[in-house]
Amino acid sequence: MILYKPIGVIHSPFRDQEGMPIQPAGARGIQGWIDINDDYMEGLRNLEGFSHIILLYHFHLSNGYDLKLTPFLDKAKKGLFSTRAPRRPNPIGLSVVKLVCIEGKIIKIENIDIADETPLLDIKPYVPAFDAFSDATSGWVKGKAEWLCDIRADDRFSKENG
Amino acid sequence: MILYKPIGVIHSPFRDQEGMPIQPAGARGIQGWIDINDDYMEGLRNLEGFSHIILLYHFHLSNGYDLKLTPFLDKAKKGLFSTRAPRRPNPIGLSVVKLVCIEGKIIKIENIDIADETPLLDIKPYVPAFDAFSDATSGWVKGKAEWLCDIRADDRFSKENG
Repeated sequence: MILYKPIGVIHSPFRDQEGMPIQPAGARGIQGWIDINDDYMEGLRNLEGFSHIILLYHFHLSNGYDLKLTPFLDKAKKGLFSTRAPRRPNPIGLSVVKLVCIEGKIIKIENIDIADETPLLDIKPYVPAFDAFSDATSGWVKGKAEWLCDIRADDRFSKENG
Repeated sequence: MILYKPIGVIHSPFRDQEGMPIQPAGARGIQGWIDINDDYMEGLRNLEGFSHIILLYHFHLSNGYDLKLTPFLDKAKKGLFSTRAPRRPNPIGLSVVKLVCIEGKIIKIENIDIADETPLLDIKPYVPAFDAFSDATSGWVKGKAEWLCDIRADDRFSKENG
């Protein structure tokens, strides 16, 4: 077993999963902030030079998982690991968000598809040379990403439905 | 506290941190494989359509952390969260690797910068519409990524030096 402890809390306008945007690409302009625990503040130095950051967080509103599920972007069941659904064996979320500014222990962010009060596990700088693969093929998601702006989450992955 | 359990094990040619490539971008052509626990095999369906996958894993060779550290790509100390160093409060690694093929519970992968026997926490499909931000600015890493092919890790982030 592996034990982690949140390093801060993510704040957003989204109190529950229903109505939330799907992916940062469907959340353009939506703002939120991270409140980093005092203990870790010094580790934020040099981060402000990056326009985007990778957030790893714990999907605290999800529990349990199904190995096949119907994702928001399709009507047919898919294998869990071919989706970004929050109900996973280890419910770790990953979002690439825009870094607006850092003020002390507060990091202001944009394009946020994350529920309010989500426990933050890690921040990494987004580096195109490490992370941007524009030519990657996207399997069953191909051609569906353009729907992102119109689709909002329902409660299918919430704790009550877990 | 948050508790996770590995879903499989990552295998690679790298037995310890010294001499390892830095980032998948510095590990082109290096092959490895993932052995997924039987329990989760069904969740791999539909994954093969994706050319790249995101691996989240536990840096099992690291322990402890410093909030400021000298990364491989620079000579000056940087704030921990502006680096991809393995010694972190929650030592979760993230690599985007090429998916070669899936045979039962074995996933063959390429461009692997991960130590042998690393516990795997999650697999997510890499989707350019979600994950590729080619125009992102990369702070202190700017202009240094081209060194990746020539640089190899030393043992500065290993357990012994933790």
